Amino acid sequence: MAGAEWESLEQCLEKYLPLVELEEVNRILYGKETRSLDLPRRAFEAACQGDFELQGHGFEAAEEQMRRPQLVRVGLVQNKTPLPAEAPVVEQVSALHRRIEAIVEVAAMCGVNIICFQEAWTMPFAFCTREKLPWTEFAESAEDGITTRFCQKLAKKHSMVVISPILERDRDHGDVLWNTAVVISNSGAILGKTRKNHIPRVGDFNESTYYMEGNLGHPVFQTQFGRIAVNICYGRHHPLNWLMYSINGAEIIFNPSATIGTLSESLWPIEARNAAIANHCFTCAINRVGEEHFPNEFTSGDGKKAHQDFGYFYGSSYVAAPDGSRTPGLSRNRDGLLVTELDLNLCRQMNDVWNFKMTGRYEMYARELAEAVKPNYSPPILKE
Amino acid sequence: MAGAEWESLEQCLEKYLPLVELEEVNRILYGKETRSLDLPRRAFEAACQGDFELQGHGFEAAEEQMRRPQLVRVGLVQNKTPLPAEAPVVEQVSALHRRIEAIVEVAAMCGVNIICFQEAWTMPFAFCTREKLPWTEFAESAEDGITTRFCQKLAKKHSMVVISPILERDRDHGDVLWNTAVVISNSGAILGKTRKNHIPRVGDFNESTYYMEGNLGHPVFQTQFGRIAVNICYGRHHPLNWLMYSINGAEIIFNPSATIGTLSESLWPIEARNAAIANHCFTCAINRVGEEHFPNEFTSGDGKKAHQDFGYFYGSSYVAAPDGSRTPGLSRNRDGLLVTELDLNLCRQMNDVWNFKMTGRYEMYARELAEAVKPNYSPPILKE
Repeated sequence: MAGAEWESLEQCLEKYLPLVELEEVNRILYGKETRSLDLPRRAFEAACQGDFELQGHGFEAAEEQMRRPQLVRVGLVQNKTPLPAEAPVVEQVSALHRRIEAIVEVAAMCGVNIICFQEAWTMPFAFCTREKLPWTEFAESAEDGITTRFCQKLAKKHSMVVISPILERDRDHGDVLWNTAVVISNSGAILGKTRKNHIPRVGDFNESTYYMEGNLGHPVFQTQFGRIAVNICYGRHHPLNWLMYSINGAEIIFNPSATIGTLSESLWPIEARNAAIANHCFTCAINRVGEEHFPNEFTSGDGKKAHQDFGYFYGSSYVAAPDGSRTPGLSRNRDGLLVTELDLNLCRQMNDVWNFKMTGRYEMYARELAEAVKPNYSPPILKE
Repeated sequence: MAGAEWESLEQCLEKYLPLVELEEVNRILYGKETRSLDLPRRAFEAACQGDFELQGHGFEAAEEQMRRPQLVRVGLVQNKTPLPAEAPVVEQVSALHRRIEAIVEVAAMCGVNIICFQEAWTMPFAFCTREKLPWTEFAESAEDGITTRFCQKLAKKHSMVVISPILERDRDHGDVLWNTAVVISNSGAILGKTRKNHIPRVGDFNESTYYMEGNLGHPVFQTQFGRIAVNICYGRHHPLNWLMYSINGAEIIFNPSATIGTLSESLWPIEARNAAIANHCFTCAINRVGEEHFPNEFTSGDGKKAHQDFGYFYGSSYVAAPDGSRTPGLSRNRDGLLVTELDLNLCRQMNDVWNFKMTGRYEMYARELAEAVKPNYSPPILKE
């Protein structure tokens, strides 16, 4: 296995396939081709200087008579943690703030309207350790923590909606921790927060040691640039989670994540993209990059020796459209900013072509699910 | 666009990529490698003589202490209609019976335990025409039509479970037509039937002109070789449909389909595979091949001139496993039989690793869906 140093699927296919074959392969693997976005040269220069990848793509929609195009540019950020996990908490947070600030500057040059950072972006993904300190010290108030205040400044400065996924400490409800995304309007005001609805208990993702299933349901945020929702990480494995955000009106669903090669890399191109198809909406899948080393050994429940890291986050962040097409992924191993222009009209257009909500029969499923969860449920199994 | 003559994605990648790159590409695109099944030489000879493709693959599961491997071989059949749509109905049906009989002979040589044919397999996919005659004459009783009797003979002869998707005429309920799959036990007895739950109104798939949404819910069939269900065609776009079959206990969900290149080819590798991942089960996606020409012109609601066919069915039938891996697809343009050996133990193993049912929060979704379908539902939308 080539591992973390192998840059991306797209680069490999482009390198080896003849052009006519590449077109056919891309048609099947990526759907209708995205167009390249014309981003400013100084943005590429700043990205180069800042040592992160910058890609720009655009999805097209058909012209309509009654609506103008609803163009919105989203920015997806994937990044390594700049300091080692042993560094003081405040220094790690501060280094991440500085790193993100630099990337957001470039996003602003590219005209990004809505930006989303990776899951628990202010910290290493330390939930594999099962240790409480110092990791719980990264938790902050969603309403007035330093990271929310930092994001408010960014939002206002660049007139950009900011989605900031953090480890939240909820002081008003007995100091409970949550995996939360704070959504900040381009005015700088906090629009609200949303919490991770499904919590993994798989491999090194021992997250239920730290926080429980979210209790805020499926809120959608009306921004100046469209209606958005946030499906955090492991929620992407749950089709019902995507569905409820979509039923509630989301046109773009962000999926800030942290996931590693051995666990999920072959699932990654499938799940968020399936959600875009099934729900007639755009989905934005964001993963970390790099390896994170922890001070103390931990075990992974896989029979292997205790160790201090859990493999590499494979990046590959991408945007999927309601017509089943998708952008190429960002690199598997470099920090990156993916700028994508969406025409939100494509959501309703695909809805009117495919009609999955019209043909969805949700009454039937509400009834069947309500039956199925009863302790005495007896599934309809036909035998000879 | 290369079109129907381009054989398959897998063949193209194998031809051009160096071995080490191919391995990495396959790991990301196909997940854990399937093993090649050792099928008898005479089966390959018979397939060659019968001019259809034969592929054999196997998925592995971990060894357990308390259960033996539960090996089952499934067969997926994709085929053209041998006679033109102008031929007399009885001759078309008879030619299809003969074609399928020959393919099932080869499946028997390969030790297939459960075989599934394509959607509405006894007829051309004439629903694009919106004409009633002669197409409704292909409808048969699920209980004692000639096709069910034919399949019962095959099932008994080869001790093979047969899934036979037909256009059903339900005489006992006022001669209503349905899109139905009849499931026949390896004893030759009819286990039952299941109906297409979601009916498309998209492009040339004018199926609601002929039949309505199924009224049999989500039955699962207990066979000697495992618990199976059938999600017919357009139902694959509806994640809740897959979910209910899975909640009801299905370990293998077959998806007999008929779909064409321009509409869905980039969605095809995504949807059934996502369902295998999300539901910890095997899914078997089957599509037709070839073009079907109809005697009279029809239009497609796409601004184009009236015509007599609706493009090519792109085959590419495949099996996806609960660990996210999948087999290569059958050809895009040839008849084919895909034989795949599954170890059903992989379903529970993946369930116990990922726990999507445990973390699925179905009570919450039953409640939210029941609310969402109310006429006065007001979604939770947060504004500034």
